Amino acid sequence: MDVGFIGLGQMGQAMARNLLKGGHRLTVYNRSRGKAEALAGDGAKVAYSPGDACREPVVITMLADDTAVEAAMLGERGGLSALGKDAVHVSMSTISVALSDRLTETHRAAGQGYVAAPVFGRPEAAAAAKLFIVAAGAPSAIATCQPLFDAMGQRTFAVGEKPSAASLVKLSGNFLLASMIECLGEAAALTRKGGIDPHVYFDIITSTLFSAPAYKTYGALIADQRYEPAGFSMALGLKDVRLVLNAADALAVPMPAASLVRDHFLAGLAQGEGASDWSALARLSARNAGL
Amino acid sequence: MDVGFIGLGQMGQAMARNLLKGGHRLTVYNRSRGKAEALAGDGAKVAYSPGDACREPVVITMLADDTAVEAAMLGERGGLSALGKDAVHVSMSTISVALSDRLTETHRAAGQGYVAAPVFGRPEAAAAAKLFIVAAGAPSAIATCQPLFDAMGQRTFAVGEKPSAASLVKLSGNFLLASMIECLGEAAALTRKGGIDPHVYFDIITSTLFSAPAYKTYGALIADQRYEPAGFSMALGLKDVRLVLNAADALAVPMPAASLVRDHFLAGLAQGEGASDWSALARLSARNAGL
Amino acid sequence: MDVGFIGLGQMGQAMARNLLKGGHRLTVYNRSRGKAEALAGDGAKVAYSPGDACREPVVITMLADDTAVEAAMLGERGGLSALGKDAVHVSMSTISVALSDRLTETHRAAGQGYVAAPVFGRPEAAAAAKLFIVAAGAPSAIATCQPLFDAMGQRTFAVGEKPSAASLVKLSGNFLLASMIECLGEAAALTRKGGIDPHVYFDIITSTLFSAPAYKTYGALIADQRYEPAGFSMALGLKDVRLVLNAADALAVPMPAASLVRDHFLAGLAQGEGASDWSALARLSARNAGL
Amino acid sequence: MDVGFIGLGQMGQAMARNLLKGGHRLTVYNRSRGKAEALAGDGAKVAYSPGDACREPVVITMLADDTAVEAAMLGERGGLSALGKDAVHVSMSTISVALSDRLTETHRAAGQGYVAAPVFGRPEAAAAAKLFIVAAGAPSAIATCQPLFDAMGQRTFAVGEKPSAASLVKLSGNFLLASMIECLGEAAALTRKGGIDPHVYFDIITSTLFSAPAYKTYGALIADQRYEPAGFSMALGLKDVRLVLNAADALAVPMPAASLVRDHFLAGLAQGEGASDWSALARLSARNAGL
Repeated sequence: MDVGFIGLGQMGQAMARNLLKGGHRLTVYNRSRGKAEALAGDGAKVAYSPGDACREPVVITMLADDTAVEAAMLGERGGLSALGKDAVHVSMSTISVALSDRLTETHRAAGQGYVAAPVFGRPEAAAAAKLFIVAAGAPSAIATCQPLFDAMGQRTFAVGEKPSAASLVKLSGNFLLASMIECLGEAAALTRKGGIDPHVYFDIITSTLFSAPAYKTYGALIADQRYEPAGFSMALGLKDVRLVLNAADALAVPMPAASLVRDHFLAGLAQGEGASDWSALARLSARNAGL
Repeated sequence: MDVGFIGLGQMGQAMARNLLKGGHRLTVYNRSRGKAEALAGDGAKVAYSPGDACREPVVITMLADDTAVEAAMLGERGGLSALGKDAVHVSMSTISVALSDRLTETHRAAGQGYVAAPVFGRPEAAAAAKLFIVAAGAPSAIATCQPLFDAMGQRTFAVGEKPSAASLVKLSGNFLLASMIECLGEAAALTRKGGIDPHVYFDIITSTLFSAPAYKTYGALIADQRYEPAGFSMALGLKDVRLVLNAADALAVPMPAASLVRDHFLAGLAQGEGASDWSALARLSARNAGL
Repeated sequence: MDVGFIGLGQMGQAMARNLLKGGHRLTVYNRSRGKAEALAGDGAKVAYSPGDACREPVVITMLADDTAVEAAMLGERGGLSALGKDAVHVSMSTISVALSDRLTETHRAAGQGYVAAPVFGRPEAAAAAKLFIVAAGAPSAIATCQPLFDAMGQRTFAVGEKPSAASLVKLSGNFLLASMIECLGEAAALTRKGGIDPHVYFDIITSTLFSAPAYKTYGALIADQRYEPAGFSMALGLKDVRLVLNAADALAVPMPAASLVRDHFLAGLAQGEGASDWSALARLSARNAGL
Repeated sequence: MDVGFIGLGQMGQAMARNLLKGGHRLTVYNRSRGKAEALAGDGAKVAYSPGDACREPVVITMLADDTAVEAAMLGERGGLSALGKDAVHVSMSTISVALSDRLTETHRAAGQGYVAAPVFGRPEAAAAAKLFIVAAGAPSAIATCQPLFDAMGQRTFAVGEKPSAASLVKLSGNFLLASMIECLGEAAALTRKGGIDPHVYFDIITSTLFSAPAYKTYGALIADQRYEPAGFSMALGLKDVRLVLNAADALAVPMPAASLVRDHFLAGLAQGEGASDWSALARLSARNAGL
């Protein structure tokens, strides 16, 4: 398939590479051009503007945040104006429900398709084509994209025809991760102050109640107090929880645990730890406990 | 080994049975005698008072709460006065850090040993001798008990010489479960109000981020809104979170997520849902969201 | 002085009338024209568009929210384009810090002055020219407006040259009121469930610790459970707390009490009580307590 | 009237002195005897044990906490055993609802009366006989005590026949003060980080919305960041909020704002600030905001 691909960060690069491996023809765009050119060796065509990458029947965006998506697609020389009628825009990054709704409307008005298809998985999963993809949009548009999803991920979950539903699922997942970290941090402060070695503690917890990889990963970071360099920063954690709370506000759903986590991320930022890993929530809990 | 065993609820019964299978000789006591007599067929000797069960070198208690342990061991005709010098009391139920500390002192003063060895695992795990046991106390006392632990569980974690440390680990684990339920409930309210089918939602969450059985179990209960009959009731959840907060208070550790969960359990109780499963926290979140 | 006045709700009408009484010449605009014409009898000139009201050296806006201010001043045919160079826009309603900052920039770019001057006081205070006015902006612009402030209020507080500082003070005041209501509601639920008559309770509280009128007003509403009709609705309370939290987010200030209040307003809205008085927070607390 | 008076701290001393001035005959007891002897000059008789002070028809206790009251009244040589049949114990300090209920039972069983009559007011109010007294108990017992209340306070509020109701009102009042401080601290952090001078800020707030003395007192402490020496310490604030939450737990009343305040006091204690004034909650908010 001929595909435009915009956004070649750590995740996007790995995903684009897997599309090329799968035999698809890519026109790639990245704001700092070096990353696009790095893919030329794998057979990608380099675009010099978002619009150039939008002349294909399908264009995928994998960008940092709402602002980047708006700049690439909705700006004055944004991709949307170059995108053909009946073409499909697949937004695979984590964006707000509000922007997802706005893109739905804008593309519909232009006679284009829009699919939200955010992913669960870290860069290693992206490299191994093992991502989980949560897709929502018109069934025909999703069907069109399925071969692409198959080249990048291990499984696709369809969550209905309203694209922003997929964004909501993704955001809620990040809320569950953030609140898990908060709770692990509180439990670690409690048991550490009670004289229990954090490594022993997390060995118990992840061997018994919570065998999920997320618990092992974050338990280890907290036990080691290894918050730098960040895998995913407090600043990004705050951004996502903010998006969760905005979505919850729009739907009138009180989420006190999300509010609590937001306030703690905010305290982290205010205290100069925005660039630390979001698991540094546990350092805040430790500090509040006088540890 | 000759062992006294006090408390034959669903968990205790299965544990006692596995001790008998392992070749140990048991003297069992239960307040309602029927449950003790049920074990006579498996070879257990029936005691008619806690004291009668305390004439062995090791006595295990597996009782509902602090009050039951105090009544059985510390009351006027409690087991402690019948327990021999050098005998060891192994407390395997979930009790408060404060009571664990008090038992440590009381047994020490009487020249007896005390081990706290609470377990992780549900009745099925108890029946299959697959419990996880978290033990703390004098190393020699734990060594004495190891064959018993091996007959009941799949693995023993030693967390030091201070018995109450084991109680603290157990309580913190229940906090992690309760707060996980709270967060799942908030996420379910958000996504359900956003139009996503809860079964689809939890399928995604437990296939991707959180593969741990706890997430699958509670995700299913929440998706089905199946809160009765209770596997573990809101009233018991509240009791345990209260014990967590009491321990946290004594150690001066702020635990805002625990406070939040406590307040929600309290709301559940106040609204007449104390006998519902503790996963009914999700029903509260749904109700607060107008669902 | 020649003054344009936009926004003739309950507050705006009373304020405009006091300006007329003070000898100022007013050109008034209101979206539903009836309210503007009602002031013609008092000597006001009726404008038929925001722009028409913006041809004076000073224009005051007293509108419902950000959206209304944006529509009146920043829209395509908004007042700003009609406002002369060196004219001053005085925004007296409760608007967001972000909009206040944006107006500062926009007016500066157009060579115009901008003063934020929100008020504390209910409609009766407005009618009696007893408002408290919190003003921020260029000292010369504030000096220009002082005679107008004197005609509408009993005292003006200057809080610096950055206009949005006045908006922040106003919003923080509404946070203090909302959180006071939340706490009164929790205390009322506690004592009422403890068997104490709420009228007796609030008589004690307002006779001893808290003699402020706000406590008396809201204590009476809560004791009487008189939440309809609303003096100030839950929906408006939510809007203002949302603005507080947005400002706090932008400044990286965690405000957990504000988060708590936001979540409770949200629960009120979700349960269909958005039009009730914001003191109905106490009804939520009562309901959560099973009352 | 002949009155025993136990507990001569800052408050008790002033109250006892006013009883003497009112013509009552006092037998006074204090653990450190100097304070009792200081009152001898005013005509008080010094008792050498709580029991000695309990041989009068009315005995007042004004002690630091539950432990002190239990020690004085319920211990082995406690006052209760010396108290005559039909005598009345008036507990005027802030104690738990649970202890108030226990004293009710104990005195009833001994054929004695019990009145809970905690006070609102600081030492200066006590010295000026301007306390507010909240009394609960048998009407006849309260009537007996009324002349004593009149000698110590400016007004007595009767809140029913169940003594612990008065304790509950007092505790709820301390909750309202503590949560007010929390909210003032959050608002101060917000506005200070927004560039507003805290003295100006609190001048506005206490001139407009909240004229109550409590707001002025604590606003000034927060603006001055004058948290030492403590008027009322964080440790005592924590103790009282803990009693509030215990009472709320027993009545099944969720109080999230109380939980929040408890967690912040706990953080203060954990960070070594237990001896600071409880208004140092505002320092925590400032620190969390990176100020």
